[in-house]
Amino acid sequence: MKYMKKKMLSLGIITAVLAGTLSCTGCSGSGSTASVSDETEQTETAEAAENTPKYIFLFIGDGMSYPQIQLTNYFVSANDSAEKGKTVNVEGEETDVLQSESHLTMMDFETAGSAQTYDSTSFAPDSASTATSIATGNKTWSGSINVSLDYSEKYETIAEKLKAQKDYKIGVVSSVNLNHATPAAFYAHQKSRNSYYDIGLELIDSGFDYFAGGGLLKPTGADEDQENLYTLAEEAGYKVLTTQAEAEALTADDGKAIVIDEHLADSSAMAYDIDREEGQWGLSDYVEKGIEVLDNDDTGFFMMVEGGKIDWACHANDAATVIQDTIALDEAVAKAVDFYNSHPDETLILVTGDHETGGLTIGFEGTDYDTFLTNFNNQKVSFTNFDDNYVAGYKENKTDFDAVMADVTELFGLVPPDGSAASASQKDSVDLHPESDNDGTLVMTEYEYGKLKAAYEETLSRTGDEEEFEQQEYELYGSYEPLTVTVNHILNNKSGVSFSSYAHTGLPVEVLVKGVGAEDFQGFYDNTDIYKKMAQLTGVI
Amino acid sequence: MKYMKKKMLSLGIITAVLAGTLSCTGCSGSGSTASVSDETEQTETAEAAENTPKYIFLFIGDGMSYPQIQLTNYFVSANDSAEKGKTVNVEGEETDVLQSESHLTMMDFETAGSAQTYDSTSFAPDSASTATSIATGNKTWSGSINVSLDYSEKYETIAEKLKAQKDYKIGVVSSVNLNHATPAAFYAHQKSRNSYYDIGLELIDSGFDYFAGGGLLKPTGADEDQENLYTLAEEAGYKVLTTQAEAEALTADDGKAIVIDEHLADSSAMAYDIDREEGQWGLSDYVEKGIEVLDNDDTGFFMMVEGGKIDWACHANDAATVIQDTIALDEAVAKAVDFYNSHPDETLILVTGDHETGGLTIGFEGTDYDTFLTNFNNQKVSFTNFDDNYVAGYKENKTDFDAVMADVTELFGLVPPDGSAASASQKDSVDLHPESDNDGTLVMTEYEYGKLKAAYEETLSRTGDEEEFEQQEYELYGSYEPLTVTVNHILNNKSGVSFSSYAHTGLPVEVLVKGVGAEDFQGFYDNTDIYKKMAQLTGVI
Repeated sequence: MKYMKKKMLSLGIITAVLAGTLSCTGCSGSGSTASVSDETEQTETAEAAENTPKYIFLFIGDGMSYPQIQLTNYFVSANDSAEKGKTVNVEGEETDVLQSESHLTMMDFETAGSAQTYDSTSFAPDSASTATSIATGNKTWSGSINVSLDYSEKYETIAEKLKAQKDYKIGVVSSVNLNHATPAAFYAHQKSRNSYYDIGLELIDSGFDYFAGGGLLKPTGADEDQENLYTLAEEAGYKVLTTQAEAEALTADDGKAIVIDEHLADSSAMAYDIDREEGQWGLSDYVEKGIEVLDNDDTGFFMMVEGGKIDWACHANDAATVIQDTIALDEAVAKAVDFYNSHPDETLILVTGDHETGGLTIGFEGTDYDTFLTNFNNQKVSFTNFDDNYVAGYKENKTDFDAVMADVTELFGLVPPDGSAASASQKDSVDLHPESDNDGTLVMTEYEYGKLKAAYEETLSRTGDEEEFEQQEYELYGSYEPLTVTVNHILNNKSGVSFSSYAHTGLPVEVLVKGVGAEDFQGFYDNTDIYKKMAQLTGVI
Repeated sequence: MKYMKKKMLSLGIITAVLAGTLSCTGCSGSGSTASVSDETEQTETAEAAENTPKYIFLFIGDGMSYPQIQLTNYFVSANDSAEKGKTVNVEGEETDVLQSESHLTMMDFETAGSAQTYDSTSFAPDSASTATSIATGNKTWSGSINVSLDYSEKYETIAEKLKAQKDYKIGVVSSVNLNHATPAAFYAHQKSRNSYYDIGLELIDSGFDYFAGGGLLKPTGADEDQENLYTLAEEAGYKVLTTQAEAEALTADDGKAIVIDEHLADSSAMAYDIDREEGQWGLSDYVEKGIEVLDNDDTGFFMMVEGGKIDWACHANDAATVIQDTIALDEAVAKAVDFYNSHPDETLILVTGDHETGGLTIGFEGTDYDTFLTNFNNQKVSFTNFDDNYVAGYKENKTDFDAVMADVTELFGLVPPDGSAASASQKDSVDLHPESDNDGTLVMTEYEYGKLKAAYEETLSRTGDEEEFEQQEYELYGSYEPLTVTVNHILNNKSGVSFSSYAHTGLPVEVLVKGVGAEDFQGFYDNTDIYKKMAQLTGVI
């Protein structure tokens, strides 16, 4: 049995990019207007006015569900407990007395609803279809954005409606590409999420006020023969900024803006927070700037903010990086709460996920009832940083495994079982027993060391062009670099954490809500209801 | 590295059973009374009266968190979709268009709060400590029931308080033993959950009105030298029933009753629902009977109902059995909803879990974005039924693997890769391609078949007295029968489902609530708040 190479963008049913135009019922953009009379619109508006939030923040942690949030909270708690030092229990044993408060801003919101996420293709749906549900209230195929199952209809999004019917200013922020599935679902309508260039054209056509985050994918089209999207954006009146200094200087007076992060990393996305250098803008900075440029007393604003690389790190089973990007999203949420505190009667903040990624569990079969979450402090770089800046060199130079291990010890805290030469110099510099004298140490067992060595041999043997994998090989490594994903697996497992998949899973997502209308979001419901509740609160139709 | 054998009852920190008595502040039972003046009590009662639920149901799915509920819901949805037949999508491919409604009664409740579950020992806590939190609002050590960290104080439970302060009738129902950790946490106070005999004495001493479900563990003490608990119960005025006919005949006029299920299975617990024969009472029957005997117009009642074997099946990584026991719990919840419909202004129904067990994920690294949940229909028996009625015989007779495979095909739908003799006769009687022509079939790959064969060899080589396991061996099988747990793993994985642990994990649990005061339970909070909210609503102190 062969396993096909499946990257995070390929799905069970790939929706082909078909030629031809779509009919558009009620789409804004391209000069079209909402298909309702002004009279009807005003009546609806009046009815909704009393409880209508003027300022709406919608945060989407891509791939973020209960495990990602809770692991992050417990990681901070574990560090807190470790700092407090051990106490002695009644049996005379040294132990931590665990205490965990809500260390995350989002966990303190007054409403915590729960949404199931399946789409028309799968119980483990993708970001295109789930963001379609959140943005428009409709189910569609995995891989499709805001189109009906027979592709005959385009769905108008909550952002388009708020702009067209209420004149809200609109912001779209993402740590990944601005024409990636989740941000696209607020302005684009495409059979395939992979139609990056066409999505980019719709971005420009949206007329939204503030785009910020990762760079556009395929800016000159799949065949690199189209007019550059950034040029087209400038021609359409957008200010396109590509340096942090320019971003810092941006004001509301500058008009419509597309702000591309200066320090783009893998796939032209913003860097993982674990890799971010001091002074380099993170997600919260782009949200803070967004508030500055979108804020207006006249009509209000809607800002969608995606923590998109939580998903990417979950795909790669890199838990330490997941934790840091979840914290980064929470810091962005805190900026919205700051704004809320100045406008408590007019602001609504939603934090949700689109689906779970990776099958993350706070528990692992090898550690039973124990976790050792402070072990994650040993990791210094993301998986992709390790791939690009270390493993690529190992492959080129056929680096000796002992030298590789020295890096693994330095960057992940893992040491060989016998204190061999490669790790001897490092052993004193890492805390080998951060939480435990036995299972929780970062000294690898012979079994773990053997797995790592085998993974490195597999890494050296690969050309990078592999398209098919044997079943066992795929279960071990997915389509990731065998050495890197195995390092992550071992560190996860020694921390008492595990992943079961390199893809998405069917867990529901939380819907954490604060502010005007928050009470409407309680209960267990479908992700399409998130749109419906927002629409009802704002009175758009 | 050696892995110690850890059954589900052994924990990171085992709380030793120390001699000596505990001081009891405010405990009911044993003639003690709540340490408050009548005057204070009456004031509190008056304040709470307006919104006080007269009838309270508290359902606890042991080990049941978001994954267990959602998997069960999606399993029913998948069967529904399969029944509807395939449709053809715009690419001309045959496919299901997935649709999923709330097939579970509990999912339709108006409030869906979320509670974090850690205890003083662990982020992956146990049932004793978590039930202590739910029943009394206090954190304690894993393994302890309703005692403080230094064991100096006993905590009075919500059930004891409702009885002592409000004269509510009290019912405790569990599919596992009535002196197991979760039910015990509503009437007992012990340093160790393993003190079954002492817990049984407290059960008798509680004076609660209705106990029903699994049999008492250690009814004559750990050394079998104590007076029989059932005899003591009868002496204390309890009617002790052990047949279904007696249970059916029980009425409120019979007074206090302990009803032990007639068809006890593993460890004197009720049978798994997947193994239950037609006409044999399940959890919902004991709840229905409980309503009948507890219902009273004068003071009201409180009934705690535990679906205890969801946890046991999760420990064993037996997903099909988990699904059926979750459905059984939901059917019991439906009985409470029937009662609610007659008393909508006076009834409160809570459904929660105590912790997640098994690290269950709706997704698996080998199946990417696909699930094949209808595959679970192929499983006919629980893991423990297979262990006892099949595997025990294989071990005794050193049964040939081909003969074993014939049973595995019959009971789990798995067939060898080459259609060998053992399975040939069965091949026509099972649906080999219930959802898919490729990855989702129940024909095993050579890799899977090899794993199953190796597991059987391991099963044959074991004496049952093993106390230590090698790391890889433990990760593969835990302390379960290698053949059985591997059959479950393969069926899970071919269904697109996985477990990451044989123990508990740190996922939060849902708190699904319907009825009077339900709105108080929204939000993301600590499991101790479940008690606090119940206490506030009922005005107990």
